[in-house]
Amino acid sequence: MKLPSSTATNLNKSGLRHFLKTQDFTRAELTEILDLMKMLKDARRVNAVPPLFAGKTVGMIFEQPSTRTRVSFEAAATILGGHAQFLSPNDIHLGSKESLEDTGRVLSRMVDVIMARVDVHETVAGLAKEASVPVINGLCDWLHPTQMMADIFTMQEHLPEGKQLDDLKVAFIGDATNVSNELAMICTKFGMEYAHVGPKKYHMTEEIVGMVEDNCKEYGGSFVMTDDINAVKGFDILVADSFYWFGQEDEKEERLATFMPEYIVDQRLMDIAGPQAMFMHCLPANDKRETTREVMDGDSSLIFDEAENRLTAQMALLVYFTHQHTKPASEDVAASHKAKIDDFLNAL
Amino acid sequence: MKLPSSTATNLNKSGLRHFLKTQDFTRAELTEILDLMKMLKDARRVNAVPPLFAGKTVGMIFEQPSTRTRVSFEAAATILGGHAQFLSPNDIHLGSKESLEDTGRVLSRMVDVIMARVDVHETVAGLAKEASVPVINGLCDWLHPTQMMADIFTMQEHLPEGKQLDDLKVAFIGDATNVSNELAMICTKFGMEYAHVGPKKYHMTEEIVGMVEDNCKEYGGSFVMTDDINAVKGFDILVADSFYWFGQEDEKEERLATFMPEYIVDQRLMDIAGPQAMFMHCLPANDKRETTREVMDGDSSLIFDEAENRLTAQMALLVYFTHQHTKPASEDVAASHKAKIDDFLNAL
Amino acid sequence: MKLPSSTATNLNKSGLRHFLKTQDFTRAELTEILDLMKMLKDARRVNAVPPLFAGKTVGMIFEQPSTRTRVSFEAAATILGGHAQFLSPNDIHLGSKESLEDTGRVLSRMVDVIMARVDVHETVAGLAKEASVPVINGLCDWLHPTQMMADIFTMQEHLPEGKQLDDLKVAFIGDATNVSNELAMICTKFGMEYAHVGPKKYHMTEEIVGMVEDNCKEYGGSFVMTDDINAVKGFDILVADSFYWFGQEDEKEERLATFMPEYIVDQRLMDIAGPQAMFMHCLPANDKRETTREVMDGDSSLIFDEAENRLTAQMALLVYFTHQHTKPASEDVAASHKAKIDDFLNAL
Repeated sequence: MKLPSSTATNLNKSGLRHFLKTQDFTRAELTEILDLMKMLKDARRVNAVPPLFAGKTVGMIFEQPSTRTRVSFEAAATILGGHAQFLSPNDIHLGSKESLEDTGRVLSRMVDVIMARVDVHETVAGLAKEASVPVINGLCDWLHPTQMMADIFTMQEHLPEGKQLDDLKVAFIGDATNVSNELAMICTKFGMEYAHVGPKKYHMTEEIVGMVEDNCKEYGGSFVMTDDINAVKGFDILVADSFYWFGQEDEKEERLATFMPEYIVDQRLMDIAGPQAMFMHCLPANDKRETTREVMDGDSSLIFDEAENRLTAQMALLVYFTHQHTKPASEDVAASHKAKIDDFLNAL
Repeated sequence: MKLPSSTATNLNKSGLRHFLKTQDFTRAELTEILDLMKMLKDARRVNAVPPLFAGKTVGMIFEQPSTRTRVSFEAAATILGGHAQFLSPNDIHLGSKESLEDTGRVLSRMVDVIMARVDVHETVAGLAKEASVPVINGLCDWLHPTQMMADIFTMQEHLPEGKQLDDLKVAFIGDATNVSNELAMICTKFGMEYAHVGPKKYHMTEEIVGMVEDNCKEYGGSFVMTDDINAVKGFDILVADSFYWFGQEDEKEERLATFMPEYIVDQRLMDIAGPQAMFMHCLPANDKRETTREVMDGDSSLIFDEAENRLTAQMALLVYFTHQHTKPASEDVAASHKAKIDDFLNAL
Repeated sequence: MKLPSSTATNLNKSGLRHFLKTQDFTRAELTEILDLMKMLKDARRVNAVPPLFAGKTVGMIFEQPSTRTRVSFEAAATILGGHAQFLSPNDIHLGSKESLEDTGRVLSRMVDVIMARVDVHETVAGLAKEASVPVINGLCDWLHPTQMMADIFTMQEHLPEGKQLDDLKVAFIGDATNVSNELAMICTKFGMEYAHVGPKKYHMTEEIVGMVEDNCKEYGGSFVMTDDINAVKGFDILVADSFYWFGQEDEKEERLATFMPEYIVDQRLMDIAGPQAMFMHCLPANDKRETTREVMDGDSSLIFDEAENRLTAQMALLVYFTHQHTKPASEDVAASHKAKIDDFLNAL
């Protein structure tokens, strides 16, 4: 299975950028998004977020339900003065009654940005192909870029004293999932020391590894992929994820037998890492599978800050990718349109 | 099957008007709605739409899913500063737990306008009967008035040089559907030359034809119903629609055999019409059934402008039917209510 | 079946109050909410409701569909400038993929208040346990506090001349439901004379009766539970509710045989009460079961005002429980955040 080449582009027909994967963006650009997240989170804390998305709509397409992605985008749009439309798996059948490209074109005429949480990457890429508004990948089988903005931001909020992002050592423990693929790319892009720790059978594909190694060369990070849990020794962050997903239910027994108990991020593994180690997980987490209640609720756990930062990320992404097109008219122009319409209505 | 007489009225109990079919409105009134559409579309283009629906709610009832109707109304409400509630087929069961009339009465107390996309016209008429807010027919088995405002507006945007709406020649090719019924009514009301082209078995009912002929007499248009595709020669607009719908799946083979290939709006039929001919379709369109990709993507296709104008129409309809009741209080009155409530909350 | 002791608390971890049952609140506090309802209803009538919930989100969790609760909360949030997220039974599976407490914690990071309409009281109590935002009980198997605020407010709007709330005589006729449990508590808390009239088998539990009797002692009301319909003689308000609910379908025949025809609130029973008697029902009502069309549509019926006051109550509850945390920043602070973000975006 290869990552479709259609993802190579992040520019749509109008010259607007899509957010299909973090790998399409430079470290400087991703840092801009992180900076915007900080400003918006600070503003939110004091109820001072400007209505930068007022009157605007993000169309959210879900091929699978996803509470966190949905609630965070919908709340983010509201905070910014706009609205997120929730198009559930029952409401929209992508690629059935009309082509993905036509859906992309039609939605582009009605909404200001599209967010899609899809079964396969080809779907979000197909939507993006003909869309004239930005398309955000809200999760696909290969990638999870919005989660990664939340994760890097959370790491930045909890940097050990005196350290920068590129001083961090981050290890993912488990399967090669959309989360771990994207995490490997963004951590190496930020120059971190990154380890993927899991059974060899579930290591990342050559294609992803290639991108990760390119990042190491360009941005000065390092990368190791190993089945040895002792690799986490001295690491700052341990990240876990579910051991099986939608469509992998029939592999459940085999997967659990392979991953457990060795690759559970429990207190044993946190102790191997050391007292500096912090824990992250995109949630929902399965107690006694990939992690334990003890770790989730422990002092080293960042999981609820990480969840809140989904919202922080969605605010920034909505603004970053649409702000050029959503600027309100000048006061004069707005007043002139208002006067014309008011006069018309009063004369009815 | 007769169009229920309950649709004869477009006035509700409070003297507010419903929008159940375009036939209830004069050409002058429909022109007002088109004028408002133009003003709102112009304002939208520069992010200057006034918040004419601020704090207001349109309750959207769907007995069948309908992506375009839903997305366009929801985006329209947001642009105008209000909100569209999406009541899906799973959320509300019209006429089961309580009477339609009671649902109309209860919703009228909570929302500012009701939009219903229903299986049978009697349902939207039943809601309207006791509603004290305007009810908009978002599609029924007989009619599709909101689509028609989008269609006429799109024709107006693409008028051949030197022509007015009443100079246009419009042909619908296919089955007598809710779209073609309403199209025949509104085109003749605007004084156009109108042709319904399709197999005799699928021609319009006498009742609809009666209304169409009345329009021709009153507004100076003309009307022909024929099975001869050559009738489209010299026409400005060819409109297509699906050859079968929900509930007609068992007629599918017979219908396709009857309509295809003769009544497909493909390049062959566009060529019969002539180089001036433009193509419209309410979407989703079925490639190689009622039309072809070549026509849809051709220079003469208006389908994506038509889709965008669903949104243009919904904005205007929300404003046109509610503006008398949604005017914000004067600044003084608003300030007085605000001060009273603020004082109360501060004293808690 | 006992009312879980977890409901004893109405304070969450941040010192914010939940609204799990009216019994957790003093009469003075409930009166504050009624006063706020009056101010907001008055303001709504003239389109002058201040945007007290601007940019804020109420997360609405529904384990069962509930049109009235959903439409009223969603419209209330819109009127106040905010938004209600509708998490349907298909969208969120409470307690399955993660613990209730974790869902409460995660949602608390993203939304400003949680409303839950749940199958069992333990669920809303579990959400409240770890939530750091207020949790509102939108209906559980035991209680229905938001309905009761609407009901008491409706009684207050229709007080017989010269009477106060504590002069009222209120009778509930039927089964011991979530509605009648909460009604008994709040009516006695407001010092009314209260009667529960129904077959002995369906009387209230000792635990609820205990709370009701405590209220009578503290607030001067009185309480009787009887199977004699003549107890309603001279009463001001008769309240009816469905004779069976979700999960009681298999008891339907037995229940109908027990309640009907004696306990139907029809004109016969209204006549026993007397000409002063008014009728209430939370809707949807079943004609010829617990009441009749004649009574519902009669001059003594308050049911549609009562329905509208669901919206009045939801506005007040959203404001009452969140206003301390949703105050917008001062103009200076807001301008400073806006300037910083605008400068940043302009420099991109």
